[in-house]
Amino acid sequence: SADIEVVRAAAREFLELFHGESPRAERLGPRIAAVMREIELTGTYWHTAEELAFGARVAWRNNARCIGRLYWRSLQVRDLRTVSGAGDVAGSCFDHLQVAHNGGKIRPMISVFAPETPARPAPRIWNEQLVRYAGYEQPDGRVLGDPRYRTFTSELVQRGWQPPDVPGAFDVLPLVVETVEEGPQMFQLPRQAVHEVPLEHPELAWFAELGLRWHAVPVISNNRLVIGGVSYPAAPFNGWYMGTEIGARNLGDSDRYALVPEIAEQMGLDTSDEATLWRDRALVELNRAVLHSFTANGVSITDHHTESRRFLIHLEREERAGRRCPADWTWIVPPLSGSQTPVFHRYYTAETQLPNYLTDPDATHRSLQGGPPAFP
Amino acid sequence: SADIEVVRAAAREFLELFHGESPRAERLGPRIAAVMREIELTGTYWHTAEELAFGARVAWRNNARCIGRLYWRSLQVRDLRTVSGAGDVAGSCFDHLQVAHNGGKIRPMISVFAPETPARPAPRIWNEQLVRYAGYEQPDGRVLGDPRYRTFTSELVQRGWQPPDVPGAFDVLPLVVETVEEGPQMFQLPRQAVHEVPLEHPELAWFAELGLRWHAVPVISNNRLVIGGVSYPAAPFNGWYMGTEIGARNLGDSDRYALVPEIAEQMGLDTSDEATLWRDRALVELNRAVLHSFTANGVSITDHHTESRRFLIHLEREERAGRRCPADWTWIVPPLSGSQTPVFHRYYTAETQLPNYLTDPDATHRSLQGGPPAFP
Ligand code: HEM
Ligand code: HEM
Repeated sequence: SADIEVVRAAAREFLELFHGESPRAERLGPRIAAVMREIELTGTYWHTAEELAFGARVAWRNNARCIGRLYWRSLQVRDLRTVSGAGDVAGSCFDHLQVAHNGGKIRPMISVFAPETPARPAPRIWNEQLVRYAGYEQPDGRVLGDPRYRTFTSELVQRGWQPPDVPGAFDVLPLVVETVEEGPQMFQLPRQAVHEVPLEHPELAWFAELGLRWHAVPVISNNRLVIGGVSYPAAPFNGWYMGTEIGARNLGDSDRYALVPEIAEQMGLDTSDEATLWRDRALVELNRAVLHSFTANGVSITDHHTESRRFLIHLEREERAGRRCPADWTWIVPPLSGSQTPVFHRYYTAETQLPNYLTDPDATHRSLQGGPPAFP
Repeated sequence: SADIEVVRAAAREFLELFHGESPRAERLGPRIAAVMREIELTGTYWHTAEELAFGARVAWRNNARCIGRLYWRSLQVRDLRTVSGAGDVAGSCFDHLQVAHNGGKIRPMISVFAPETPARPAPRIWNEQLVRYAGYEQPDGRVLGDPRYRTFTSELVQRGWQPPDVPGAFDVLPLVVETVEEGPQMFQLPRQAVHEVPLEHPELAWFAELGLRWHAVPVISNNRLVIGGVSYPAAPFNGWYMGTEIGARNLGDSDRYALVPEIAEQMGLDTSDEATLWRDRALVELNRAVLHSFTANGVSITDHHTESRRFLIHLEREERAGRRCPADWTWIVPPLSGSQTPVFHRYYTAETQLPNYLTDPDATHRSLQGGPPAFP
């Protein structure tokens, strides 16, 4: 069928890429022949462990949105393709959080669960990241916690999730893993899987009293890893945070924790006039607090200036290796002091190259709306 | 010929647009017929004063890079289409600077000089803006003044421009106007045409001693205004500044005045570690100084928060009027605290609509490299 033809072509292209970059791989011709036979029989094929690791790393290298790609070779790949039950997937995710955290010295890591096959659809993780905070709509319409997950939270409550007796601004949501046999299942994250950093400011003593915190390891869990015609919808991966993701976006965006006005108030800034740049000043201090607190707690984090420079080194290396490096300006340029970073001052090409991590609209929908299930 | 066909089609489309939006315009049919006859005879046509004003305003409305479009209807149009000699163009540009400055209450304004015609090419203004500062390469390779105009400056010196006896960081470059008969001619700007604002900081007393200044009125002078198949390569236009253009880009960019390290030093920040966010902190103070100084001097300026909100109002109005509003995210999102502005959090379409202000590669080249002439 036409589908099979697409899988064949994608497999061949990937195997050629892998063999072209892996001097010690087994010979290409026989491997392609074996894969073609396997596709003929089953409609898909099983990557070797080496192909899987290479594919996951190159998917990172190809992702146009990621500024952190300099270290793409260092990705640790956990081959969990035989894990497919909801409880096992959840348990392995909790292990992932522990192993990746590594006492604070975070390891870039991916856990690849069972692939999508004609015989059996792959499991799905509903959450956008393994650790996300609940958002509770209050009677006055305001949200306690992360407003981004307001609907997700209320849907999980409908499904039987019990929030803590006293709901707070940083309550970790349960992990939702869906399989075709079991439907969506919820799993409370064990305490030891969730490492968090309480936020304090290097100079402003009152900052610690705001009671802010953030989790240490950002594990994106709703992207689909695509390698050579094989899809892995459940393949959570992590790097370490760039400070702006927390300080500028998660805590600063007006539709997230929106803390800038409160911090400006505490700083005593004149918020009656935009031209005092009180937003900009408060935003910088919020970001300083994030970087300071992670570092003081021994948790890996990077700042946007350092990471921008590293990204340009990466671009140069890729160019020297004779490869294209797709990049999306709107994602690569940091949300804070954009023009102060060297990545601002150039153009990029942004075509999609495979392998890659793809954002499926239905997966995005599930991660924000808490449904509908993938297997209704 | 094919060219004529293109002019005809563009003219017709523009006249339809103009008549569609101008209830009191003369009747469309006869006007189109007259224009077609004129194109038949001369290869081009002469806009009525109303068409010209409408065209210049809609060109602004259509420009995907401009965040300041809410006030597009207020553009004052100076019809100088009979002005085509180099000296007259320069003189009218100096008048433009005065009239647009308006004692500090800046008026958005355009001066439209002679159009491009088959009979005679239009004059060209080489400078990127009417007021630009010289950049002098020093023996040690560093640049005194604006490094962006390093080559432009040295080319003008080659052409006979005499910099001040004691070159400074803010020496206004002469205006270069080129016509087909006269070639490139240089004109020193009269003192009264150049309004400048000395920069001071609302709190940091030492800031004023840095001796920084910037000119009040940003008049872009190397774009080509295109209306209904007619080109106006010399049509300098201005709004007022958004503070980040000066504070983040002109004074902050590492290939412009690059003042962030010096300001951080004066602020006593720890510049040994990027994670202290000394760049971000110094950048904010530089931008505060710009906004404060312009306002204290009674010169119109806007901040990026206010302007972002206005732009979203503009988008809404355009939508309500049933029009598309092209916007380029990478230009619209401010270079400072991007994600704190509402324009960051949405997508735009960016197709080119005419009339518009276009950036010709040869004009860009002349404005940075000081040549080659348009009419060699
Ligand atoms: C090692 C440290 C890393 C850093 C500092 C880093 C940094 C970033 C940043 C700042 C973003 C933009 C996030 C946003 O604006 O929402 C991003 C996006 C992304 N990164 Fe990385 N990254 C790292 C590791 C990784 C790894 C290990 C992978 C995969 C193996 C990866 C894949 C991606 C993908 C797929 C996106 C786009 C996510 C989306 O579409 O929402 N990154 N990264
Ligand atoms: C009234 C106040 C105005 C404000 C606050 C404003 C603001 C801005 C800003 C911030 C930019 C980006 C500049 C950069 O990043 O280099 C821009 C670009 C632009 N604006 Fe406006 N603008 C105003 C008026 C106008 C007017 C009157 C026109 C034309 C009639 C205009 C046409 C343009 C064009 C063509 C660009 C792109 C310039 C380029 O390609 O370099 N703007 N504007």
